[in-house]
Order: sequence, then structure tokens, then C-alpha cells
Amino acid sequence: QTSTPLLNWEEYLRDVESTHSQLLQISYQLRQSFSHLDNLQAEFESKYQMQKKDVESLKTYLKDIRDTSQYASAKEKIETWSLDLKQMSSLMPVSGGTFVELFLGTTDLRFRRKQQRIAFKTQYELYKKRLGPFFVWMTFLCFLFERNRWLHMLLQLFLAYYYASLAIRENILRANGSNIKSWWIWHHYLSMGIATCFLTWPDSTSYAMFRNRLHIFGMYTALLQILQARYQMARLYTLRSLGKAGEMDVANTDSTPIHWGSSMKLLMPFVIVGQLIQLYNCIFLYRLWRMFPVESQILVASILFLSTFAGNFSTTMYTLYEKTRG
Amino acid sequence: QTSTPLLNWEEYLRDVESTHSQLLQISYQLRQSFSHLDNLQAEFESKYQMQKKDVESLKTYLKDIRDTSQYASAKEKIETWSLDLKQMSSLMPVSGGTFVELFLGTTDLRFRRKQQRIAFKTQYELYKKRLGPFFVWMTFLCFLFERNRWLHMLLQLFLAYYYASLAIRENILRANGSNIKSWWIWHHYLSMGIATCFLTWPDSTSYAMFRNRLHIFGMYTALLQILQARYQMARLYTLRSLGKAGEMDVANTDSTPIHWGSSMKLLMPFVIVGQLIQLYNCIFLYRLWRMFPVESQILVASILFLSTFAGNFSTTMYTLYEKTRG
Ligand SMILES: CC(C)(COP(=O)(O)OP(=O)(O)OC[C@H]1O[C@@H](n2cnc3c(N)ncnc32)[C@H](O)[C@@H]1OP(=O)(O)O)[C@@H](O)C(=O)NCCC(=O)NCCS
Ligand SMILES: CC(C)(COP(=O)(O)OP(=O)(O)OC[C@H]1O[C@@H](n2cnc3c(N)ncnc32)[C@H](O)[C@@H]1OP(=O)(O)O)[C@@H](O)C(=O)NCCC(=O)NCCS
Repeated sequence: QTSTPLLNWEEYLRDVESTHSQLLQISYQLRQSFSHLDNLQAEFESKYQMQKKDVESLKTYLKDIRDTSQYASAKEKIETWSLDLKQMSSLMPVSGGTFVELFLGTTDLRFRRKQQRIAFKTQYELYKKRLGPFFVWMTFLCFLFERNRWLHMLLQLFLAYYYASLAIRENILRANGSNIKSWWIWHHYLSMGIATCFLTWPDSTSYAMFRNRLHIFGMYTALLQILQARYQMARLYTLRSLGKAGEMDVANTDSTPIHWGSSMKLLMPFVIVGQLIQLYNCIFLYRLWRMFPVESQILVASILFLSTFAGNFSTTMYTLYEKTRG
Repeated sequence: QTSTPLLNWEEYLRDVESTHSQLLQISYQLRQSFSHLDNLQAEFESKYQMQKKDVESLKTYLKDIRDTSQYASAKEKIETWSLDLKQMSSLMPVSGGTFVELFLGTTDLRFRRKQQRIAFKTQYELYKKRLGPFFVWMTFLCFLFERNRWLHMLLQLFLAYYYASLAIRENILRANGSNIKSWWIWHHYLSMGIATCFLTWPDSTSYAMFRNRLHIFGMYTALLQILQARYQMARLYTLRSLGKAGEMDVANTDSTPIHWGSSMKLLMPFVIVGQLIQLYNCIFLYRLWRMFPVESQILVASILFLSTFAGNFSTTMYTLYEKTRG
């Protein structure tokens, strides 16, 4: 290939030149499209906001009227507009919420290109899949090297980072129409808090009494997360092949009741056991704190475990209720 | 306004209806533009990559030839193409580098719309401006409440978060053509490490010997950062009014030598003193570690301070050299 220019140099140069001018033209078109898009986007945003206000005020106006027969056709129209607006909202800018803003500032995080949306979700899934085994092994090492506080701290640092990253990504996914319940994001915030408690817990007698339980629980959770990730992948695959989800389109936010599947049945006992361990940790830590009341990390961690248990359990039960009902 | 529909209901409804159909049409156009853009972008990316390879191989081919007179015109052409490609690179997707990928996964972080680019940079500047005074006060409180280890840990947590956020944002800015030197981003990574050391340092005798120095140094740094932010804002303003920077265009990456200004002269002594304090911290911590060799946090922090000093000092000196030469 590198010797080609030697043979017919002139021709090769001419080829490259013509490709170059084509490229220049495309880049020119691209820049034009972007500036065209900028204007169109601005126009759309202002019109959308106006229309939303109008339709909303029409709705509230109609709500006060008893004699609806006369307004039946108007009501129907307004319903359609309202639905249209909901669909169009996927073209409006979106913020990732406070937590994401803490890291990135207020920027528009809407994925307007389908490709981007799918890529981001895939990356998120890959991330969980890759780090699952890592945490299993790392926690196992911590369990083996029971006295190596440095290793334990490294694990807790990783965990704090891991949950922060999950929370950022899930906030962005949610902003782009994922149905993930906000509790699971809160769960990550609390887990960051728990990791911080264990990171700053001095290497004391009380820590020695808890560390093995901590790492056994950690291994269990890491294994469970691998199971969960498999379930989520399978579920996503089913939904995708049904042509319903996986694209996080606001258009199909209406929940798709998947029937109580066999994989879910398999997963549930493990999930419940994991949550009961959280409750156990909460009680154990509370008792430990009564023995060492100076180390307030213990109490904070206990309270955080309680909140995690309460939220996880109730959200899982609610999800089950929704699914078996549908 | 809300009573308008009562008066001429029919007319109002018709108005909203016509706006609605306009909006629908714009949203349709918008979706079309996006899908058109998707295709154009894909075409551009593949052509760009091919052309880049060709131009590069032409360049290396010409380099080997002694008798350049014959190829003078070809050489000129290739130079132009090369420059064009550099300009066009601002339309190619870009990754934020490993650190950003750890948080967001591999996504395209190129700001193609000027508006986005400027908004992101402005947010970054606002962020630094807002958190400056916060850190001054917080560090002052830590100095006052000398024995409140909880408060100190909170400060170190905030600092770790702050430097992570700065590093993420600056990586994104750099990917979009900012001239920020990679050292300053490394500085943030090291600072995260320092904050982690102080966060996990047990509340021991050695800590008691260092904490006041730590907080006095912290206050100095926080104040210095406010000064620096002012300088950066002023510099950006000057560059913007000269029409050179602030848009982070790869097109104008060639550095703009601003002459050794009076604000820079004012800033420099404070910067140098700050860096010397870092060296002092390094030495002090090293001696402390010799007294308490069990607490390895002290040694790690000392090494991190040494690296910070070395990098900061040499980068600042190099920047000064560049600027006074220009
Ligand atoms: C109960 C459970 C199996 C239901 O999963 P599901 O069938 O996906 O639930 P939903 O239909 O409500 O999911 C809606 C969305 O939320 C996401 N989601 C559900 N649970 C999630 C979780 N725990 N973490 C992150 N995302 C979750 C789904 O991926 C889906 O996203 P999408 O709209 O982008 O496709 C799941 O929530 C779960 O495993 N919970 C237990 C977690 C736990 O308690 N862990 C700690 C124990 S140690
Ligand atoms: C020396 C110094 C004043 C030069 O600043 P400058 O004139 O902006 O330098 P440059 O021209 O090289 O800047 C190029 C880019 O890097 C950015 N930049 C420079 N120094 C930076 C820093 N310390 N942190 C973040 N960004 C910085 C500029 O904003 C500019 O960005 P842009 O291309 O998006 O406009 C500045 O780097 C500085 O204050 N350094 C000392 C920092 C320090 O040591 N702090 C710790 C002491 S306790």
C-alpha cells in the first residue's frame, strides 16, 4: 500500500485531492446542519413551552365545567395535544438532577440521537457486568487478609466511587426516560455514605469485631449483583425483542407488565436474604455502638443500613405487587 | 389571562390548535434533521479517518525524499490538507479520557453546538467562583474547632469531591480544545489522594501535631484560588475581546502569548509562596512519619505533597517562560 504512490504518484495525489474536497464539503454541510439545528431547536423550545402552558390552562379551565357534553370534542382534542406534548418532550433539554450537576454543572444531558442513547445504556450494563467479579474477588481478599486495614480501605474507596458512578449514570438514564425507580438511586447515595463510614472507621477493637461480617456480607452482595445483572440483561432482551423497551423512549413510559417470570422467581429469595442481612447489620452495629459509644461511625452506619433495608424491601415488594397484578 | 378563554373560547381554541400543528411540524422537522445529521455525521467520520491516514502516509513518503524541489507544490498542498484536517477534527467524536470514562463510560463528549461549549465553560468558572468562599469559611471553622475531627473529615470529603469534579470538567474542556495543561488535571488527582490520606488518618497524636498547619495551609490555598479565579476570568475576558479564545476552538490552539500582565505579576508571589508551603508540608510530614512510622498515611501524604510541589512549580515556571518569551 505504501508503495502505491511511487508507481502512479500523480494519480494518487489527484485521488487524495478529490477526496479532500469532498470531505471539506461534507464538513461544511455538517456545520451548516448544526447551525440550522440550533435555530430549529431554539424555535421548538420556546414554542413548546408556550403550548404546554396553554394546554395546561385549557385543561384546568375544562375541569371546572360541570356540563361536559358541550365540550366533549374540545376535551378530546386537548387530550390528544397533551399526549403529543408528552411525546415531544423527548426533544426538550433535560437536566440530570442535583447529583449530576454537582459533577458536571447544569448541562443539557438529553440524548437526541438514538445511537448515543443505546451506547450509554450498553456502557452502563457493561460497567456493572465487569465490576461484579472484581468486587467478589476484592472482598474475598479482604476477608482473607483480615488484618490488612489498607486493603479494606481501598475496597471501601472503590465502593464509594462505584456507587457515585452508578448514581450519575442512572440519573442520566432516568432523565432520558428510563423507568428506574428513584429509590435505587437513593440506595446508591446511602451506600456511598456506608462506604465512607467504613473508610473512616479507625482500626479499633470494634472494627475487628465487625470486619469479617462486613466482608462476608460484601461477597454476598457482589454475587447477588452478578445475578441481578443477568436478570436485568435477560429482561431487557425480552423487552427489546417484544419491541417495547431498551430505547428509553419517553413515548413508551407506560409500564410494561412482564409476568412474574421464572428468572424473577429464582432471583427473589436471594434478594430478600440480602435485604435481611442489611437488617441484621443494622442491629449488630447498633449493639456494637452501645458498647463503643465514642465511635459515632458505628451509629451512622447502623442508621444507614436501616434506611437501606427499609427502602429496598418496600420498593421490591411494591415492584412485585405491580408485576403480579399486571 | 386565564379568563381569556371564557370570552372568545372558540377563537382561543382555534389559536391553540394552529400553534399545535405548527409545533408538531417543527418537531417533525427536528427529528428529521437529527436523523439526517446522524447519516451525515457517520459519512463524515469514515471519510475523515480515511483521509487522515492518506495524508499522513503522503507526509511520511515525502519526508524520505531529498530532492524536494520537484515536489514543492505537492508538499504545499499536503500542508494545507493537514491544516484543514486539524480544523475539521472539531467535528469528530471525542472521549474524555480514562478518568471521565470511569464515571460516565465511553461516550462522545464533543460539544458540537457553540452554545453548549460556552455554557459548559461558564458553569465551570461559576463553580470555582462559588466554592472558593465556601472552602475559606469551612477551613476557618476547622481551624477554630481544632478538636472536632468530624468537621475535619467533612472538609476532606468535600475536597475529594471538589477535585474529582474539577478533574472531570477539565478533562471534558480539554477534549473540546481548551489549552489547559494536563499537569493541572494531574494536580487534582494528587489532591484527591491527599484528601483521602487526611480523611483516613486516625485522630492520633500525630494528627494533633499537624491539623493546625493543615488548616492554615488550607485557608491560604482557598484564598489563593479565589485570586486565581479572578485572574483567569480577567484573562479570559481579555482574550475574548481580542476575539481569540473562550470558545475552545481547536482551530486556534496555537498559543496566544499574552504579555506578562500586571495581574499576573500580582498573582505570582502568592502562587510561589503557596507552592513553597507544599514543600514545607512535605518535609514536615516526612519528619512526622519518622516519629510515627506505623501511620503510613503520613508518608503517602508527604510523597503526594512532594509531587504536587514539583509539578506545580515546574509547570508554573514553564508557563512563565513561555509567556515572557512571547
Ligand atoms: C425487584 C427487581 C428484581 C425488579 O427489577 P425489574 O423487573 O427490572 O423492575 P422494573 O420493571 O421496575 O424496572 C424498571 C427500570 O428500573 C431498572 N431497575 C430495576 N431495579 C433496579 C436496581 N436495583 N438497580 C438499578 N436499576 C434497576 C430496570 O433496569 C428498568 O430500567 P429501564 O426502564 O431503563 O429498562 C429489582 O429491582 C431488584 O433486583 N431489586 C433488589 C435490589 C436489592 O435490594 N439489592 C440489595 C440487596 S443486598
Ligand atoms: C501560572 C498561571 C497563572 C498561568 O495561567 P494562564 O495564564 O491561564 O496559563 P495558560 O495560558 O497556560 O492557560 C491555558 C489554559 O489553561 C487554563 N489554566 C491555566 N492554569 C490553570 C490551573 N492552575 N487550573 C486550571 N486551569 C488552568 C487556562 O484557563 C487556559 O484555559 P483555556 O485554553 O480554556 O482558555 C496559572 O497556571 C496558575 O495560577 N498556576 C498556579 C496554580 C498553583 O500552583 N496552585 C497551587 C498553589 S497552592
